[in-house]
Amino acid sequence: MKALYFDGTKPVYLEDYPKPAASEGHSLIKVLMSAVCNTDREVIKGYRPDFRGVLGHEFVGVVEASDDKSLIGKRVVGELNEGCGDCIYCNTNREKHCLTRKVIGMEGLDGTFGEYFVLANHLIHPIPDSLPTEKAIYTEPLAAALEIPDMLHIRPSTNVAVIGDGRLALMIAQVVALTGADLTIIGKNPDKLKNFESFAKTSHKDGDTYEIVIDACGHPSGIKTAKNIVRKRGTVVMKSTYAGTANIDLSWFVVNEVTIMGSRCGPFEPALKLLNMGLVNLPPIELWDLKDYEKALASDAFKVGFKF
Amino acid sequence: MKALYFDGTKPVYLEDYPKPAASEGHSLIKVLMSAVCNTDREVIKGYRPDFRGVLGHEFVGVVEASDDKSLIGKRVVGELNEGCGDCIYCNTNREKHCLTRKVIGMEGLDGTFGEYFVLANHLIHPIPDSLPTEKAIYTEPLAAALEIPDMLHIRPSTNVAVIGDGRLALMIAQVVALTGADLTIIGKNPDKLKNFESFAKTSHKDGDTYEIVIDACGHPSGIKTAKNIVRKRGTVVMKSTYAGTANIDLSWFVVNEVTIMGSRCGPFEPALKLLNMGLVNLPPIELWDLKDYEKALASDAFKVGFKF
Repeated sequence: MKALYFDGTKPVYLEDYPKPAASEGHSLIKVLMSAVCNTDREVIKGYRPDFRGVLGHEFVGVVEASDDKSLIGKRVVGELNEGCGDCIYCNTNREKHCLTRKVIGMEGLDGTFGEYFVLANHLIHPIPDSLPTEKAIYTEPLAAALEIPDMLHIRPSTNVAVIGDGRLALMIAQVVALTGADLTIIGKNPDKLKNFESFAKTSHKDGDTYEIVIDACGHPSGIKTAKNIVRKRGTVVMKSTYAGTANIDLSWFVVNEVTIMGSRCGPFEPALKLLNMGLVNLPPIELWDLKDYEKALASDAFKVGFKF
Repeated sequence: MKALYFDGTKPVYLEDYPKPAASEGHSLIKVLMSAVCNTDREVIKGYRPDFRGVLGHEFVGVVEASDDKSLIGKRVVGELNEGCGDCIYCNTNREKHCLTRKVIGMEGLDGTFGEYFVLANHLIHPIPDSLPTEKAIYTEPLAAALEIPDMLHIRPSTNVAVIGDGRLALMIAQVVALTGADLTIIGKNPDKLKNFESFAKTSHKDGDTYEIVIDACGHPSGIKTAKNIVRKRGTVVMKSTYAGTANIDLSWFVVNEVTIMGSRCGPFEPALKLLNMGLVNLPPIELWDLKDYEKALASDAFKVGFKF
C-alpha cells in the first residue's frame, strides 16, 4: 500500500508498504482522508528521534475489519494514545498520560499517512452520517481545544483573552465563544484577525486585563504576554508547546495567586457533537495526493491533508 | 507608646511613638499580642524598601475606639490588606489584590508591633470567647493555609504531598488532613517530621507520585521536587515565595497537563472556626517584651511574638 514512512531523518514515500491486519481488540481502518498537524512537522524535524514508521494521526476512515462487529463499515475518527491498560493513569481515565503509551504516527505505532492502519477499538469514534468527512477531519484538533473547558470552568460572566490568531487559536476561540464569555483575541496579523471578528473582540488595549488568558500563539513570548494581562487570582492556560525552558518569576504567580494550567489532547465525542451541530466552523482543508507530500508539508494553507 | 519602627534600613525600638486615633471606618486597637512572621524579617532585609513605619501584622487585640459600636471592647484579629474599595479587585471579593492597597506593617500603614494601631473596620474579626489569645494568634497564618482549599478542590479520595516540614507546612498539612485525603509529608529534618506523624505519612519513596503537591519548603528547589512527584494532570500549589526567577520547562507542564497554582493570604473566619474547634493544634508561641525584639527576631522557636 501507499504510505509516508519516517526513516528517522526524513519522510519517504513508499508504494509497497505492507498492509496491516486487524488483531485482537484492534481494527483495520481504510483511510479516507488524513490531515497534517504541526506535530507531524515536528516529528520530521526530530521531536521524536526514536520513531520509525508511518507518520500522521489526524484521520477520517472506514473500519474494514474488526473483532468488534459493530464497528465494521462505520466511518470513524480516532484517538492517538494507546495506554497499557493497567497503570494509575489508564485506571483513572488518563490513558493519554500512560507512561508506556504508544502513539500512532509518533511512538511505536504506524500512523495515518497511508492507505490503511490499525487502531485499538476503544479509541475509535463513529462519525454521525450527517457530518461530512471534510468537517470530521477537524475532530482531533477541536478535541484539543475542548480540553480547556474540560479542565477549567469558563463562566459565561467572565472575560477571556486568547493570545494567537492561527489555527489553534481559531478553534479555541470558537469553543470559548460558545460559553457566552466576553472574548478578546490578541493577535498580530490583521488578515488572520478577520476570522475572529464575527464572534470576538480584536480590540485589546494596553491596560486591559482578563480573568482567563489562553496562550495559543506557539511562541515562548506567550507566557510573558499572559502574565502582563491576566488578573490577579486569574488563570493562564498554556496550549503552546515549544522547545526549551522559560525563565519565569514564580514568586509573582504566588503573590498574585495566578494559576498556570497546561492543556493538551481532549475529548472526541463533544468535538464530533459540536462539528455536527455546525457550532464550530473552519476553513476547508486543502487536499493533496500522498506522493505530493512535500508540497503538502510546505503549504501555508489553513489546513492541509491527503486524500486516499 | 512603645513601638518597633522600621526606618528603611533597620528596626528601631521607640517608647514615644505617637498613639494613633480611630477615624471614619477605622478602629483603634490595643494590641494584646503580636507575632513575628517571616515576612517581617523579609521587610527588615529590604523586601519593601519604601516602607517606613511600625512593623508587624499578626496580632490579637481589643478594640478601644470605633465608629462601629458593635466592635468596641471586643477581642479581635484582623486582615492586613486594605483596598481602595473601588477597583475591579475590590469589587470582586479580591481586596487583597487591589493594585493600590495598603498593608499594615508593610505598605502605607503602621503595623502591630506597638501598643496600639488602627485598622479598617471591615478587616476586623471578633474572636470567640472560648478561644485563648495564645491560639487566636495563629489565625492569620492558618488563614493562609486555608487559602489552598479555598482555591482548589481537595477530594477525600485523592492523595496529597506537602513539601516542607516547617511552620507553614505544619499548618497546611493539618488543614489537608481534615479532608481525609491520603497525606504524605516530604521533609528533611527527622525532628520536625515527628510533628506530622500523628496525622500524615512521612514515608515518601522514590517513584511515589501524588495528584496534588503543595510546596511549602521556602526554597526554589521546591518546584523541582514538585515536578518530579506530581502526577500527570495533577496540581502543584506553590505557597513559598522567594527572591528571583525560576527556570522551568513550561512545555513539560503543557504536555503533562499539570496545573501550577499560586496561593497567598486566606480567609479568617474559617481559620477562627477551626482553631476554636481545636481541629488545628500548634506549638505554644514564645513571647518577648518588645524591647527584646533582637532576641525575638533571632529566635528559632516554632513561633515567637511580643506581649503588651
